[in-house]
Amino acid sequence: MTTALNATHAPQLRSWVESANAPENGFPIQNLPFGVFHPENEAADWRVGVAIGDSILDIRKVAALAPFQGQAAEALAACKGQTLNALMGLPATHTSALRAALSAALAQGSALQPVLASALSPRLSAHLKLPAQIGDYTDFYISLHHATAVGRQFRPDNPLLPNYKWVPIGYHGRASSIIVSGQSFTRPIGQTRPAQEGAAPAFGPAQRLDYELELGLFIGQGNDLGQRIDIETAESHLFGLCLLNDWSARDFQAWEYQPLGPFLAKNFASTLSPWVVTLEALAPFRIAFNRDAQDPQPLPYLSSEANTRAGAFDIDLQVLLTTAQSRQTGQAPHQLARSNFRHAYWTPAQLLAHHTVNGCNLRPGDLLGTGTLSGPEAGEEGSLLELTQGGKQAVQLPWGEQRSFLLDGDEIILKAECRKEGYPLVSLGECSGIVLAAT
Amino acid sequence: MTTALNATHAPQLRSWVESANAPENGFPIQNLPFGVFHPENEAADWRVGVAIGDSILDIRKVAALAPFQGQAAEALAACKGQTLNALMGLPATHTSALRAALSAALAQGSALQPVLASALSPRLSAHLKLPAQIGDYTDFYISLHHATAVGRQFRPDNPLLPNYKWVPIGYHGRASSIIVSGQSFTRPIGQTRPAQEGAAPAFGPAQRLDYELELGLFIGQGNDLGQRIDIETAESHLFGLCLLNDWSARDFQAWEYQPLGPFLAKNFASTLSPWVVTLEALAPFRIAFNRDAQDPQPLPYLSSEANTRAGAFDIDLQVLLTTAQSRQTGQAPHQLARSNFRHAYWTPAQLLAHHTVNGCNLRPGDLLGTGTLSGPEAGEEGSLLELTQGGKQAVQLPWGEQRSFLLDGDEIILKAECRKEGYPLVSLGECSGIVLAAT
Repeated sequence: MTTALNATHAPQLRSWVESANAPENGFPIQNLPFGVFHPENEAADWRVGVAIGDSILDIRKVAALAPFQGQAAEALAACKGQTLNALMGLPATHTSALRAALSAALAQGSALQPVLASALSPRLSAHLKLPAQIGDYTDFYISLHHATAVGRQFRPDNPLLPNYKWVPIGYHGRASSIIVSGQSFTRPIGQTRPAQEGAAPAFGPAQRLDYELELGLFIGQGNDLGQRIDIETAESHLFGLCLLNDWSARDFQAWEYQPLGPFLAKNFASTLSPWVVTLEALAPFRIAFNRDAQDPQPLPYLSSEANTRAGAFDIDLQVLLTTAQSRQTGQAPHQLARSNFRHAYWTPAQLLAHHTVNGCNLRPGDLLGTGTLSGPEAGEEGSLLELTQGGKQAVQLPWGEQRSFLLDGDEIILKAECRKEGYPLVSLGECSGIVLAAT
Repeated sequence: MTTALNATHAPQLRSWVESANAPENGFPIQNLPFGVFHPENEAADWRVGVAIGDSILDIRKVAALAPFQGQAAEALAACKGQTLNALMGLPATHTSALRAALSAALAQGSALQPVLASALSPRLSAHLKLPAQIGDYTDFYISLHHATAVGRQFRPDNPLLPNYKWVPIGYHGRASSIIVSGQSFTRPIGQTRPAQEGAAPAFGPAQRLDYELELGLFIGQGNDLGQRIDIETAESHLFGLCLLNDWSARDFQAWEYQPLGPFLAKNFASTLSPWVVTLEALAPFRIAFNRDAQDPQPLPYLSSEANTRAGAFDIDLQVLLTTAQSRQTGQAPHQLARSNFRHAYWTPAQLLAHHTVNGCNLRPGDLLGTGTLSGPEAGEEGSLLELTQGGKQAVQLPWGEQRSFLLDGDEIILKAECRKEGYPLVSLGECSGIVLAAT
């Protein structure tokens, strides 16, 4: 497990990029997430960047200005393209070396400051695209609380299926319709269960459009077809994390999902945040694997001492809503829910070990979704389906509106932040999208 | 619908490549499927080729030797890479123009014969790879007979779900583990339902390994996210067909598939045949959409006069088995089943219209699987699950062995052929794979 702390995690480390040192900035020198961007008012010449405070360090310029040595240089060379896939495909030690070199170069007192200052551009106005070409996208279902709450609605007498505590349930999702934060999408059209059995299904725009609060896990080095990734080394195959909103049309889902799972209810759009926070940056926020004493021990291929000790992550998660009306009247976004990745029933290492136990090959840049990360308490629901109990209890919004499901013009903003006493705030940024009317 | 016959379909057309004119060759001048190959005993310098008789026409050499005009030349230029994706991304009229130019160039009496003869290399010994980079792979479930037979085993009291005759049921599959015909794969390892409820699941190599007889549909021109493909124009977005074996571990599937569908039971390997037969080459084999009078009329977005009249395909399908023992003793492959694509409940045009009705974007080179193409009669079962009634009735093999599910060393060969009185046999070739022991 790559949880070791090193010099890049020193809490007192400060950057010569002053905005990175502001207490609540979220992109301190301890974070250094990777993304693909181009500056505002420039042509769409996409290049790899690293977020630092309110700036982005242009890695292509870094390569030209301040070539590093050894593995850091090799990692830098892998950042030449318009995606992170080549960097992701290198051993985790390469990314770690690049991170160490960037940390040193951006630290207060670095001799490289005069050189690298010209490689900075503003972060908040930059254009960002999907950080990787996603070959395959798998979505898991790792919140027991979500599985139970949703299962209760789809199967009232049988909410949690007997496989749940043994199998990290997952299924393949659609890669082509993954969009980047900030991009709007159109309300989907489709079939809904007929009012009475045997009648023709209803057809039209989704009436029960929902979000799902998820994290996305980017695969780093992959595995060959027929080879397994062992749980002990699984995290070295995990590049980093971002936010993921798995938009869902609940009415379509209820009608189509048996027997082969969700399809058109999900594949019209999934929104990803643009900054990938590396596993190493999250090392200070690792916590023990969350299991109750009465839960079964996972099978051996899903068990390791390191996973039990520190396989999970303490990442605070938020869902915020704005509406056409609230934006027009200047209201602050309304927090719909707050949860934490620590409530998940399975860890990322377990997901990788499970996904490959049958020899399935993962490739650099493949994306795993965690599934909706609901917590155990009220207010920790990761979807409207849970929050409104299937639409039965509308949410009252402070500006007077209410919502059972999403209406046209609604915007969902996901946030993820890591907080620890005496350590700078590490943010995964935001993941937002606005629902447009069906066409 | 692109079912119009043209000069490339003239039944009496013959090629100067003599082997193409043999009555049962399957790759006559009326076929001209596309693939990606390199000749035996040459470096792995992959290039696009067109099968003609026992030869492959090297399209890269054609471009150098005999440049065509207009859309045919544009299509030829799109064949420079190591996949068919660029060609697939052009309008269907471009592929049609290239096909017409190739047909004329390969016809008896063509002035190009002396030039193009040097662009031929042997087909049977050539190395072939996957014809396209597959962005997303969707598997459907379009045989009512398969859905009913399988449903009976997984849900005895509820075999065919109420959505089946309204929704072309599909789900996303794994693109990374699609392999080309001839490549072996390792028996997968995984979890199986515990013997008694609450006990730990069994874990080990799949005991109920199966094949599925499918066709693969390659997407040509795609659609933008948020745009629908209308059923009337759907076939212009379909490049061509090949054979697909969706290997399945039935024991894993039964345990993991609820509530989100098959995952590790399927994603360890799927085998694709290397030659893509264009929709135009299949025009002579179009037949009426197969519905009983009592079946419900599809919803409007799944209905068109052209689809009713000629939306389906008359393609004869076979499943053949060899075993380590049968190959050692020189036995002929044993035919396990024979079916036909005509038995499908939904047509390719309906699959495209359904897949995109919610705005989901398809990209050139995306693959749609039909699902297991079982027919209504005994002997037409497209999987061992059906053929052996869930393993209860082993198949007797003529050389003395028997099979309930696949054993190590077993090879499954799928074949697809189009036959019509007075027209040359048009073959989709073969799709084969051998099961290796779990490691």
